[in-house]
Amino acid sequence: MTSPTVQQLGEIGLLQHLRQFCPTEAIADDAALLSVAPDHQLVVTTDVLVEKVHFSDRTTSAQDIGWRATAANLSDLAAMGAEPLGITLGLGLPPTTSLDWIEPFYQGMGACLSHYGGVILGGDLCRAPVITVAITALGQVRPQRVLRRSAAQAGDAIVVTGEHGASRAGLELLLKPESGKTLAAGDRQHLIKAHQRPRPRFDVLPTLWQVCATLNRPIAAMDSSDGLANAVLQICRESQTGAHLVRSQLPLPAVFTPWLNAAQALDWCLYGGEDFELVIALPPASAHHLVEQLGKSAAIVGTIVAEPTVTLRETAAAEPTATLTLEQGFQHF
Amino acid sequence: MTSPTVQQLGEIGLLQHLRQFCPTEAIADDAALLSVAPDHQLVVTTDVLVEKVHFSDRTTSAQDIGWRATAANLSDLAAMGAEPLGITLGLGLPPTTSLDWIEPFYQGMGACLSHYGGVILGGDLCRAPVITVAITALGQVRPQRVLRRSAAQAGDAIVVTGEHGASRAGLELLLKPESGKTLAAGDRQHLIKAHQRPRPRFDVLPTLWQVCATLNRPIAAMDSSDGLANAVLQICRESQTGAHLVRSQLPLPAVFTPWLNAAQALDWCLYGGEDFELVIALPPASAHHLVEQLGKSAAIVGTIVAEPTVTLRETAAAEPTATLTLEQGFQHF
Repeated sequence: MTSPTVQQLGEIGLLQHLRQFCPTEAIADDAALLSVAPDHQLVVTTDVLVEKVHFSDRTTSAQDIGWRATAANLSDLAAMGAEPLGITLGLGLPPTTSLDWIEPFYQGMGACLSHYGGVILGGDLCRAPVITVAITALGQVRPQRVLRRSAAQAGDAIVVTGEHGASRAGLELLLKPESGKTLAAGDRQHLIKAHQRPRPRFDVLPTLWQVCATLNRPIAAMDSSDGLANAVLQICRESQTGAHLVRSQLPLPAVFTPWLNAAQALDWCLYGGEDFELVIALPPASAHHLVEQLGKSAAIVGTIVAEPTVTLRETAAAEPTATLTLEQGFQHF
Repeated sequence: MTSPTVQQLGEIGLLQHLRQFCPTEAIADDAALLSVAPDHQLVVTTDVLVEKVHFSDRTTSAQDIGWRATAANLSDLAAMGAEPLGITLGLGLPPTTSLDWIEPFYQGMGACLSHYGGVILGGDLCRAPVITVAITALGQVRPQRVLRRSAAQAGDAIVVTGEHGASRAGLELLLKPESGKTLAAGDRQHLIKAHQRPRPRFDVLPTLWQVCATLNRPIAAMDSSDGLANAVLQICRESQTGAHLVRSQLPLPAVFTPWLNAAQALDWCLYGGEDFELVIALPPASAHHLVEQLGKSAAIVGTIVAEPTVTLRETAAAEPTATLTLEQGFQHF
């Protein structure tokens, strides 16, 4: 028996199927109601994912697309220091889309939300030429805990959580299954999972608050959704600073050697994007303390400097080998 | 000189052009920060508009599309009794889209926001096969003023603001300029404007609060974005009631006679959609008081009844001539 399409179900029929994924109040009114805790600010972020631009059936199941779209937005909340409240979903669907795609997609979103917090607060369904997923995530944060791109200061150490380049490598393995033949099956799966099931790093925040409890200044942070280089460059631009990045300290996945040559590995690490880790600038003592607490899942990769350029060097003491610019990085057009 | 396209500008170039339309903070971080007033609840609503599905260059300029997309979302806030805080915008663009389209689009959004309140809080730009506009609107409301679809009670009068069918008639005139030859130029423009520049009815709310100040119960309301019949049916479904609608009291634009035959005029009034007026169920004495205060821009069109069907009759005392169902109405697929 084949699953019904959107056209066969009609909007009302489809909504009946989707009610199970949303709290009742959310889809029974013109808009959703939500309380923000006293002494908290609201945090809002939006992302649009388009079929054939941001995802394809070839590399990502409906369930993974639901997870990733949700995780990408939640990651922006984590990068502000906020905890999730919920999301709204604007979903554009071709009339031929099958319920077999839609239900797993909602399941993926639900799995991500139940893991990290928040509910589907409501949304909008409409017809579109390709599947289009517009998510707005809402979170809340105490004003003194807001992480801002603009808060970096010369002398700060740059802490990066997790590995970078893993998501890009996972995509490569999905697009070209014949590549990476030397990789062990477990390593392969690890990279593919980094692409399909990214994890917003809310787990880093309590440690960060604890390490910074006595600092009387804001902390700079951004997520690395558009690449590690992009995050450092954006923090520097908004803070009117520059940075020295040290190549030997960059968090490349260990399995990149001997699979990739050094240039390719560096490129994916700096520009691959979609790792959804955190890039944080804070005073060196706090940075060392943070990395100690987080263990091997974080590293200090460089220093914020007053001169407004971002350079890359082999070691902290070496001369720069490259200057990084926003134009090199992840562009959406 | 032709205007540059998105592809020529690149994402960074495009963002430079768009900065003028957003408060600085909004586009300089991972997410936007916002305060909700103490003792208020947050209200959130999302809409997606897709080129060739919801709008076309043939009938609507970029500026009008910006206005309409914003107004449609703000109307959902008004239907909850909320005041606007701002919107986020997820904008999907084909690479060939010209800045000549994008800037007027933002101007239209800005014009609507500066008229009704709120700012562009942030957003996301991406590539898409057709122009795709995903807007999430945020507002705030005191809990005791929330208007709910589920609050109607048997015996309530149904008040409808404004005219219904005007937006659908305006669309017809845009699609078929040869139709409506008997209409005066001013009337023609009035209908076209109803389609291109709908007005969310925040202006009704202070009068509604005043009229209901001593009522100790919630008021039911919904906006008529998906048609007048749809709004009544949704209120009845959520309130587990039915309604008697009276055909002779329906708010048809006066210019429909003699242009349209009675069946066509009724169809557009009940099912045309996109008038973005308010449908409100409240006790008869308050309803009469409300209509008196609002003047000729509002009418009582029927009564909420206990039996869960929505019927139409010629006069309040007559037998029903039709039963309305959600399936008849505005469907998005």
